[in-house]
Amino acid sequence: MSASTAGKSTRIVLASRPDGAPTPDNFRTEVVDLPEVGDGQISLRVVYLSLDPYMRGRMSTAKSYAAHVELGDVMVGGTVGQVVESRFDGLEPGDYVLAGAGWQSHAVVDGSAVRRLDPETAPISTALGVLGMPGFTAYSGLLKIGQPKEGETVVVAAATGPVGSAVGQIAKLKGARAVGIAGGSEKCRALLDEFGFDAAIDHRDPDFADRLAEAVPDGIDVYFENVGGPVQEAVWPLLNTYARIPVCGLVAQYNGADLDRKDRLPGLFTSILTKSLTIRGFIQSEFVKEMYGDFLRDMSAWVGDGKVKYREDVVDGLENAPAAFIGLLEGKNFGKLLVRVAAE
Amino acid sequence: MSASTAGKSTRIVLASRPDGAPTPDNFRTEVVDLPEVGDGQISLRVVYLSLDPYMRGRMSTAKSYAAHVELGDVMVGGTVGQVVESRFDGLEPGDYVLAGAGWQSHAVVDGSAVRRLDPETAPISTALGVLGMPGFTAYSGLLKIGQPKEGETVVVAAATGPVGSAVGQIAKLKGARAVGIAGGSEKCRALLDEFGFDAAIDHRDPDFADRLAEAVPDGIDVYFENVGGPVQEAVWPLLNTYARIPVCGLVAQYNGADLDRKDRLPGLFTSILTKSLTIRGFIQSEFVKEMYGDFLRDMSAWVGDGKVKYREDVVDGLENAPAAFIGLLEGKNFGKLLVRVAAE
Repeated sequence: MSASTAGKSTRIVLASRPDGAPTPDNFRTEVVDLPEVGDGQISLRVVYLSLDPYMRGRMSTAKSYAAHVELGDVMVGGTVGQVVESRFDGLEPGDYVLAGAGWQSHAVVDGSAVRRLDPETAPISTALGVLGMPGFTAYSGLLKIGQPKEGETVVVAAATGPVGSAVGQIAKLKGARAVGIAGGSEKCRALLDEFGFDAAIDHRDPDFADRLAEAVPDGIDVYFENVGGPVQEAVWPLLNTYARIPVCGLVAQYNGADLDRKDRLPGLFTSILTKSLTIRGFIQSEFVKEMYGDFLRDMSAWVGDGKVKYREDVVDGLENAPAAFIGLLEGKNFGKLLVRVAAE
Repeated sequence: MSASTAGKSTRIVLASRPDGAPTPDNFRTEVVDLPEVGDGQISLRVVYLSLDPYMRGRMSTAKSYAAHVELGDVMVGGTVGQVVESRFDGLEPGDYVLAGAGWQSHAVVDGSAVRRLDPETAPISTALGVLGMPGFTAYSGLLKIGQPKEGETVVVAAATGPVGSAVGQIAKLKGARAVGIAGGSEKCRALLDEFGFDAAIDHRDPDFADRLAEAVPDGIDVYFENVGGPVQEAVWPLLNTYARIPVCGLVAQYNGADLDRKDRLPGLFTSILTKSLTIRGFIQSEFVKEMYGDFLRDMSAWVGDGKVKYREDVVDGLENAPAAFIGLLEGKNFGKLLVRVAAE
């Protein structure tokens, strides 16, 4: 069988590196010819593109846990797509797959690098959210590092997002008290009514720090850190002895932090020492081998039973990805942010 | 049996709270009548008083892991003493005991709060050092939190002190590479010749950070944090992914930190996230129940075999305790600092 040409792909590349918050100028749209589908490869059309805060780090050259995107290269990202042509045993045209195809309409990828999805068991979009990387970040970080015990208090920010909402709901399933932080009254209402948190605090409230303190009368035992910034600052004095702080993201400082203030590092270490705190940075990939099977089993069951709910914020059209991503870093989305690149 | 009067005690009390580094004015010597020896109590004459960095924290009212010393109260401290009178079953006059009698010549304490020492198995002073709290701090923090693996690199500061020297030697016994930091060439020589470290770096060297980097060509896997300050700052960029940082002390900042500089907290969290670091504050008492038996067994054997060496810096006379303590915070001692309050 000879290789065939898979056609063209519309893609969004990194045009320039942001200085602070990204702007539309940092992105450029191109149409390119797809390479031939080689042995062991598949071509796919992208249906959903996931937009996630970690992508901000890939736009910069600062040292990070993953390589940065080169100028002119397609932006990285998780996708759900449908196989168009397959030269990989076990995948057929029409199959849905989870793939890291990035910000583009079509791609040719190695068949061994994708995972086949069964649209009968769960909506395919959930493979990018509650049953995918964000859900696993919540599950592994909370259970492996946070280790919430019955009756303890767990606090998480960006709590209507795909990581935060899963953290709070898993904490509840483990018998802990869940306190969520979000921006705006609509999101706070959803935390209570939709996701079942015990308390919801609006970080835009001028008395945010006081409201948070009132919401945790027994202090904080687990702070699932995914934002940094002012939320972190309000949380810190409320931590209990032996509190655990899994750190999976710092979205509030990705666009730059205010360094023109007193050095808080010595005070942080004093807290670590006097409260016997545990701070642990992690990337979910560290725990895949050990916990991914448990995660898929538990989370699929919880979602199926309605014990874990999720919310998606779907933007139509690849051309709207840059604006949606910029909004994500400002907290404008409400739920897991996805771009519907093409109809299912 | 009626209670008897145990006589007088010379003691050093907290006269005023230090503002920055302690001065001799913060201490006052008094002679007081000892209380009667009640049922279940013993009276003892103090032989050795341990001086340790944590005592600086007790002099201040800032929140800490232990209560501060009230003005006019005797300074706290671990001691080895000899029983003078006993109304406690199992202790006889002449017995040596480990007790928390503080900075004084004599004391009346509950018999249940002391531990009998056998002068035949080890010098009684070691109960305050390598076979006592400092040794257990090293043992528990390194093995429980640091978890050095064969071939990894362990860095510790104040490395000729009772905690640091034990950390390095235990790391070697576990197959790791031990790099010690100390002040001055004499201490650095002792690290190599006496304690068997693989490398020794003088933190007073103007090129300290470069020397440290050269000494850890494979990066740092465990940084046992007992000083903070400039040493911490030099260590940070050299930490490897998944590095562990047990935090048991911050002596460099006990007398106040320089806060008039850029805020380093956001950068610290970026490192925690991008390198998947584990930072864990601890007080040795947390691990006593779980590990103290293992510690006494292992450490006694290692000391007996000459596999773990220790050094003591003995100052004669209780009246010299304040100056010796002030010197301790400046790194002037060389080995475990003890005050010989009376002859054995």
